[in-house]
Amino acid sequence: MLLLNANLATLAGKGYGLTPDGAVAVETGRIVWAGPRDAMPADLRRGEEVDVGGRLVTPALIDCHTHLVHGGNRAREFELRLQGASYEEIARAGGGILSTVGDTRKAGEDGLLAAALPRVDALIREGVTTIEIKSGYGLDIETELAMLRAARRIAEVRPIRVKTSFLGAHAVPPEFKGRAGDYLSEVCLPALRAAAEEGLVDAVDGFCEGIAFSVAEMERVFDEARRLKLPIKLHAEQLSNLGGARMAAARGALSADHLEYADAADAAAMAAAGTVAVVLPGAFYTLRETQRPPIDAFRAAGVAMAVATDLNPGSSPMNSLLLAMNMACTLFRMTPEEALAGATRNAARALGLSDAGTIEAGKRADLAVWDAGHPAELSYRVGFNPLYRRYYQGVA
Amino acid sequence: MLLLNANLATLAGKGYGLTPDGAVAVETGRIVWAGPRDAMPADLRRGEEVDVGGRLVTPALIDCHTHLVHGGNRAREFELRLQGASYEEIARAGGGILSTVGDTRKAGEDGLLAAALPRVDALIREGVTTIEIKSGYGLDIETELAMLRAARRIAEVRPIRVKTSFLGAHAVPPEFKGRAGDYLSEVCLPALRAAAEEGLVDAVDGFCEGIAFSVAEMERVFDEARRLKLPIKLHAEQLSNLGGARMAAARGALSADHLEYADAADAAAMAAAGTVAVVLPGAFYTLRETQRPPIDAFRAAGVAMAVATDLNPGSSPMNSLLLAMNMACTLFRMTPEEALAGATRNAARALGLSDAGTIEAGKRADLAVWDAGHPAELSYRVGFNPLYRRYYQGVA
Ligand SMILES: [Zn+2]
Ligand SMILES: [Zn+2]
Repeated sequence: MLLLNANLATLAGKGYGLTPDGAVAVETGRIVWAGPRDAMPADLRRGEEVDVGGRLVTPALIDCHTHLVHGGNRAREFELRLQGASYEEIARAGGGILSTVGDTRKAGEDGLLAAALPRVDALIREGVTTIEIKSGYGLDIETELAMLRAARRIAEVRPIRVKTSFLGAHAVPPEFKGRAGDYLSEVCLPALRAAAEEGLVDAVDGFCEGIAFSVAEMERVFDEARRLKLPIKLHAEQLSNLGGARMAAARGALSADHLEYADAADAAAMAAAGTVAVVLPGAFYTLRETQRPPIDAFRAAGVAMAVATDLNPGSSPMNSLLLAMNMACTLFRMTPEEALAGATRNAARALGLSDAGTIEAGKRADLAVWDAGHPAELSYRVGFNPLYRRYYQGVA
Repeated sequence: MLLLNANLATLAGKGYGLTPDGAVAVETGRIVWAGPRDAMPADLRRGEEVDVGGRLVTPALIDCHTHLVHGGNRAREFELRLQGASYEEIARAGGGILSTVGDTRKAGEDGLLAAALPRVDALIREGVTTIEIKSGYGLDIETELAMLRAARRIAEVRPIRVKTSFLGAHAVPPEFKGRAGDYLSEVCLPALRAAAEEGLVDAVDGFCEGIAFSVAEMERVFDEARRLKLPIKLHAEQLSNLGGARMAAARGALSADHLEYADAADAAAMAAAGTVAVVLPGAFYTLRETQRPPIDAFRAAGVAMAVATDLNPGSSPMNSLLLAMNMACTLFRMTPEEALAGATRNAARALGLSDAGTIEAGKRADLAVWDAGHPAELSYRVGFNPLYRRYYQGVA
């Protein structure tokens, strides 16, 4: 296939990589050439030609941080809080993360898959071709595995690539209240080993926070990841600075995520390690946080920044990566160029993928064609989806 | 037609009007009966029966404040600002409202219609069946009329009702800089008379603000509206309190809109007049305002509150009424019930419509069927559209 008459934003190199009147040659699901039409080698003029009418063509989007496999929703809790209920009243009404744990345990693998598909389909409609999905609402061995199996099955029934992250260290379940160490020994680490054995784990994640796991506890989990030769990533410095991002960077983490309370030293450590900063404005927005991640420090240190939905039923019921890009600009003052790189090139890096996120020879032909004239429009609009067509491995 | 197995939220009366296992009987585009299935009169069991599978059914949504007819977009200005450009630099680069005025004057009526349709289609996909559209980017007689004609034509080519507002008093165009009074005399009032003569005006609006028109200037426009027997509404107290909302209420305005700087006295005046408070969280969000409209004062005074997108290319490029509902909750602390009433029952009031916004006998059969279990889900999710089916005057 040969895409012609494309206003390319290749995202190769540093900026947008704007290439007016561009062409993209695709063979067996891969890009074999991309650039200005008049520089295209003549021997590429074979196969089907597709004129995209001068539309903007970018790499397909990548949502590198989601919890989109889960049971239930928390609309009732959302409503109670807005009616003035206290946190205690909400807890008594069964709210909070443990309500999602309960609903997830009840759903079963098939139920989890069925509930996830409308969320996946909404992302597909926005030109997303790769999503990351975390476990972490099972908090028992069986349900953690069921979440990851459901995540894997999504890629069997939808044209999308799924990268899984094991997030057993997400919260301490009620049956281990006050015994986080025992939870790690008896549930989290055995679940990780079992899941890895079954080929269900692409990376190992954790929630390093006062209300979740300490740096030392996360190091136990990451030691196990190292034994299993699995890459790591970490929810870090969301509500306070515990040093999780630095610890993760020192271990070569793919990414540290959230990072509202990270500082210049964290940024330097992440830059040195090549750890991507994944910012999650949907959670910042939903929780009405006021402390913004240190975007200037990331820029100054040369940290690659990614943007993701954090799609989850509690702190970020956000099902639009385009909206996350807009919020990264509006709330975090990232540029539209950074937001788009954050949902393509840098999102790929945050998942350890070298075959996606840019339009270059050798990459997968995962492309998004937009009814837009300039890539800044993708971040500028709020709640509007200008997708015209999506290619997944060269197939529309 | 008879809708059966519906989880109704009728919005009739004060709250959601939840009616599990409900039925809605429709004849020639109108609701003839709605209520619990087992209370339905037997003689209504005629015509096509449609089982909606227990899904949530609400009144179709109404977006009661948009500027969706306009030329161009301001993505470049959005990008420049995030790259650190000053307001002067942006003005020199041709940014600001006057760039939209320039693009709108250039577009022509056909161009305005073509550009508006994708925005309308996105709202239709969210279950919207009535939209308000303002003029106000022409600021010359010809283009103000072209905007309103384009707005009227939308209803000829899409299954949606359009209510127009004449907003000649939106800004002072460059050719009248420093001569707002002359602009009103020479352009705005003649344009209003011509538009009314042509049947293009359902209401008369204005932007009452330090950067736009004073209360006294708006009174000149509203005096003309009174002569033409047209209802009025007003952009008021968005950036400061000038007394516009009180003045508009004293003249029986349908609505006062924005209202971040309104106070309890304004709320009392609006309540006394039955003037609806239209809150526009998309502009608050995009402009990163911190002063929230006085929701508590509106509640205490019994002011009906509506929620709208304010869809416009500058301060609110927001094309999702569901997202506006979520932002009304998250940013303004309205309840999901208030947000839904604000996009149905009270939005109808803000447009002077007595035939829409609730599910009751005699109303238009404008209905939204949602893949949702509870109406709070509509406001809880961020950037997700659970619409299953939309009925416009009884037609899916
Ligand atoms: Zn997360
Ligand atoms: Zn407006």
